[in-house]
Amino acid sequence: MRQQEQIKIKNYRSEGFIGKYQKLVRDEVIPYQYSVLCDEAPDTEKSHVVRNFINAGKAVRGEDTGDGFYGMVFQDSDAAKWLEAVAYSLALFPDPELEKTADTLIGYIADAQDKDGYLNTYYTIKDREKRWTNLLEGHELYCSGHMMEAACAYYEATGKRALLDVMLKNAEHIYQHFIVEGNEGYPGHPEVELALMKMYRLTGNQHCLALAEHFINTRGVDPHFYEKEKEKRSWTVWGNDATNAEYQQSGAPVREQKDATGHAVRAVYLYTGMADLAAQTNDAELLGACRRLWESITKRRMYVTGGIGSTVLGEAFSVDYDLPGDTAYAETCASIGLMFFASKMLENEVDSEYSDVMERAFYNTVLAGMQLDGKRFFYVNPLEVIPGISGVSPTHRHDLPQRPKWYACACCPPNVARLLSSFGKYAYGENKDTAFCHLFAAGQVCFDNGMKLTCWTEYPYDFTVTYEVEKGGKLALRIPSFSKHFSITINGKEADYTLKKGYAYMEVQDGDSVMLVLDGAPEFIYASSKVPRLTGCKALQRGPLVYCFEGVDNGEDVLSLSLKKDAKVTASDYQEELLGGTVILSVEAVRQEKIEGLYTNQRPGEEDCKAIAVPYYTWGNRGENQMRVWMNER
Amino acid sequence: MRQQEQIKIKNYRSEGFIGKYQKLVRDEVIPYQYSVLCDEAPDTEKSHVVRNFINAGKAVRGEDTGDGFYGMVFQDSDAAKWLEAVAYSLALFPDPELEKTADTLIGYIADAQDKDGYLNTYYTIKDREKRWTNLLEGHELYCSGHMMEAACAYYEATGKRALLDVMLKNAEHIYQHFIVEGNEGYPGHPEVELALMKMYRLTGNQHCLALAEHFINTRGVDPHFYEKEKEKRSWTVWGNDATNAEYQQSGAPVREQKDATGHAVRAVYLYTGMADLAAQTNDAELLGACRRLWESITKRRMYVTGGIGSTVLGEAFSVDYDLPGDTAYAETCASIGLMFFASKMLENEVDSEYSDVMERAFYNTVLAGMQLDGKRFFYVNPLEVIPGISGVSPTHRHDLPQRPKWYACACCPPNVARLLSSFGKYAYGENKDTAFCHLFAAGQVCFDNGMKLTCWTEYPYDFTVTYEVEKGGKLALRIPSFSKHFSITINGKEADYTLKKGYAYMEVQDGDSVMLVLDGAPEFIYASSKVPRLTGCKALQRGPLVYCFEGVDNGEDVLSLSLKKDAKVTASDYQEELLGGTVILSVEAVRQEKIEGLYTNQRPGEEDCKAIAVPYYTWGNRGENQMRVWMNER
Repeated sequence: MRQQEQIKIKNYRSEGFIGKYQKLVRDEVIPYQYSVLCDEAPDTEKSHVVRNFINAGKAVRGEDTGDGFYGMVFQDSDAAKWLEAVAYSLALFPDPELEKTADTLIGYIADAQDKDGYLNTYYTIKDREKRWTNLLEGHELYCSGHMMEAACAYYEATGKRALLDVMLKNAEHIYQHFIVEGNEGYPGHPEVELALMKMYRLTGNQHCLALAEHFINTRGVDPHFYEKEKEKRSWTVWGNDATNAEYQQSGAPVREQKDATGHAVRAVYLYTGMADLAAQTNDAELLGACRRLWESITKRRMYVTGGIGSTVLGEAFSVDYDLPGDTAYAETCASIGLMFFASKMLENEVDSEYSDVMERAFYNTVLAGMQLDGKRFFYVNPLEVIPGISGVSPTHRHDLPQRPKWYACACCPPNVARLLSSFGKYAYGENKDTAFCHLFAAGQVCFDNGMKLTCWTEYPYDFTVTYEVEKGGKLALRIPSFSKHFSITINGKEADYTLKKGYAYMEVQDGDSVMLVLDGAPEFIYASSKVPRLTGCKALQRGPLVYCFEGVDNGEDVLSLSLKKDAKVTASDYQEELLGGTVILSVEAVRQEKIEGLYTNQRPGEEDCKAIAVPYYTWGNRGENQMRVWMNER
Repeated sequence: MRQQEQIKIKNYRSEGFIGKYQKLVRDEVIPYQYSVLCDEAPDTEKSHVVRNFINAGKAVRGEDTGDGFYGMVFQDSDAAKWLEAVAYSLALFPDPELEKTADTLIGYIADAQDKDGYLNTYYTIKDREKRWTNLLEGHELYCSGHMMEAACAYYEATGKRALLDVMLKNAEHIYQHFIVEGNEGYPGHPEVELALMKMYRLTGNQHCLALAEHFINTRGVDPHFYEKEKEKRSWTVWGNDATNAEYQQSGAPVREQKDATGHAVRAVYLYTGMADLAAQTNDAELLGACRRLWESITKRRMYVTGGIGSTVLGEAFSVDYDLPGDTAYAETCASIGLMFFASKMLENEVDSEYSDVMERAFYNTVLAGMQLDGKRFFYVNPLEVIPGISGVSPTHRHDLPQRPKWYACACCPPNVARLLSSFGKYAYGENKDTAFCHLFAAGQVCFDNGMKLTCWTEYPYDFTVTYEVEKGGKLALRIPSFSKHFSITINGKEADYTLKKGYAYMEVQDGDSVMLVLDGAPEFIYASSKVPRLTGCKALQRGPLVYCFEGVDNGEDVLSLSLKKDAKVTASDYQEELLGGTVILSVEAVRQEKIEGLYTNQRPGEEDCKAIAVPYYTWGNRGENQMRVWMNER
């Protein structure tokens, strides 16, 4: 049974740290991304995505398709993710001009829908015969899924049904193909499952639920499905290996899967859909599988930054405890997907285990994905960068020391935009009598259950969180695992609360002021010795922020630094002007002296020094330089 | 001017540690490899190399070629390397039966030579039209080079000219094609340069010298040569990237090259030829280039084990200081090639800088390449292996925890065999009045300059080396850099010697007994902080042997161990029965306790313990287990 669920996007008005990011998305990311979609951004690879929809509309009307299709087979999803971000942003910041632009795009999308409900510009423009013949690589269900998410968000934000109706018709087309006509298959890139669940919960459409169940329940039942599909088709997109069922998360029925495998983004999107379905249908077996996969990720395959997917080869999970910092893939989108998964697990069972990981992924890998000015993005989030090696050595080409502008495959930037704009959905949850605070974010929240709170906090840089209660009820506050002690007072008096699975539950009355004081003292993090190379190393964390050491603060040489065993850590005051406003940490350290050549049988000298750390999410904002998260301990 | 050169293979009779290896090659490696070449080895991929020569002979005679050609385009070289190993072995251990077998094979080879001197079974059987049209991938010059080396060795060992005459005719064919007819080009896989220099020095054939000079001097003058070649041909072997001139060591004329780049084996084979030519022709400019490339390798791109080539991608050098232990390539053949290069640099200038590296490569990476029973081989020699990750994770597939039996591409096993059997050539050098001892190896050496020594030593496990002088002259003994102090006595009295560039020079008389006592105390090695991940780590060495820590000696868990900062190291007595006879080292260490999950903000407990180390060359001989060379220091 669903214990609680995400709040409606319109129910939250953000302030503070998150509010600043949401304004950045509104002011920088959304306009810039739209200029990319329209091919109007200077020095950026052509997107053509808007033209694709216009041209597909011509195809639908039987007209000449002009300059035809351009881009990746999943190009449509760029428009979908942008629209979804716009929807959330409109809910926060009404903007008739932007809404008009979005409506125009939605018009193009509606025009591009085939009469039978099919919607995908690649196939509609290039070759309708190829429809549904290559689920492994074709991304039709992926694009539909993203557009369904956009449709739900846009309806929630604006009340406008146009795109929702398009996508309900599209869902019906998919239902006809897979359920009524009984054509076999499930998406090579899972995504539609979680989107169908959103459609179902918004509209009650039973075919959406049935389709989500179908794709989840048939996946991996025949582990050779993609091979058979490949034999039947004469075309390919990338020549993906159809035999690698484990990589496709289809080596076994999902209920039997034990390890998070394959493409990391696909995996967590699938698990999100599974967790959502489990909550919706009270499916204990499916929830059990979700728990196992959650453990596989978070207990054996996750970086301390909440990054997942250790290898660039297939952008994939590799094996247990294989978590190299320097060759990490740790895609921004994968950590966003991990937040989705965590959020849906929280709906199954309120347990801070999930919200802790959600927070770790958000404040570290997800935020690191975007430059502080909102103009450049990382796909790949390594934990160690050495200019001269990173981005250059053949095994490190993907680990760039600087955020690039835009990618031909533009998945991460709009994904960051939609996540930031919908942050409230991850921060707050509710059920009929309780308001859940999973993440700490200043602003006003109106719950559908009638409760109403205003949260004041400078989190993640300060650890006092105050809730002013306008309309009371039951309140559940997460106590993060980083906080070694905490206190809760109501109107200045010690609160009467019950602690359960990392959440403090209490009754609050209209007019109450609830103050949660957490312990955000800097602390060192140690890794399991099962992770190669991390024995004898430590990382530095303050509150939810993992810190890193950059060359610019450390004499351009981080590699020669070790942190002292009993190092004292000193936190600076909050520095408004530095890195968008931050707290830096100074740690007692030693620096190894330079030697001639590579090796010596004389112990190199050492000198005491201070090592300066900044939050990981801010790295790479001051030019190319060395960066490390895990430091040797001396 | 050549300061000294390698001794003749027949001039050395080995004993002791090296002698044991040479007997192993004779008893195990050579017979097993021949059974592979003849497709008679059980459970081993077909080689077909002998049949290829037989079938090429049919092609030459205009007969049907039967079962034709099978194998890699460079399959011929397997026979060549085997023959070369046989030649050296016959020089050490006369064996009429083996010699007969070799003569038979040589007969097949002679029959396979085309009337115009061309020799390559792939082209002769499959398509003569393709001859010399794909120097980038075609390996014709590579195969000729290896066969020339075999021819020289076989002539030196047996006095038989048959193969030498074949290869002189082949050289003349190559001379016609490249010099007389003026066809452009140089080998994609350098090797023929060093082989032609051997041919020249053995036979005085000026065309061999001219060809070596030609290939070296024209290389990289037009960095687009391979691209142009590719445009002219309609076939490919592997579809190599012809535009990557740096990878092909042809981005600039060799005299202007500054960094060791590209395929590591090819690079050091090329540099060996260059160094040989520089010594032969007194070419100071070319020697300068060799010195720069030597520095590039040994000061910035070499593992502590003497392994080179950091990346599996192209089996190549990557960039300065990029020396990951766990994803290392460090091919056995590349370290053999590094020994070749060092040996030729020593001919240009007697400096222990070269012999130290030669010894490091030999006792660590080269010896590690072969299982102690001579039956299995590593191509790839990582410095860290974690079962479950190594050989399994997509980025670690090449780093196997166990030596495989035989490879379809069988370059390393015969290369190890020929190197071990010709060890004397690397250990000893001479000029008209001096005997040089570069490496310490028991046995009897007769120099062409008339000097005669018998060396007694248990090196590399004992560090006293005694030379009994039968015929005196000038003696030059290398003082290895690992030895922090040393003494030399002659007939028990302190010797009168001059120290120059790491060599002690002295006069010795008939009947003298010269005793060199080195310091082989175990010592820790530290790396430059420019090498990522090695700050705060140390490796363990005793004499020339780098040690490593294996699971089997350390409770199946090496990852949780750190060595104490001021750790005492205790050496065991020599253990006859262990790992073919070895000394193990015990080091004061601490073991980090296990934690639940991946990360903790509580410092894990530690427990004092002893960490046990064995020589790196012996690793992986006791089943699959963890192994590390660099250990964290605590």
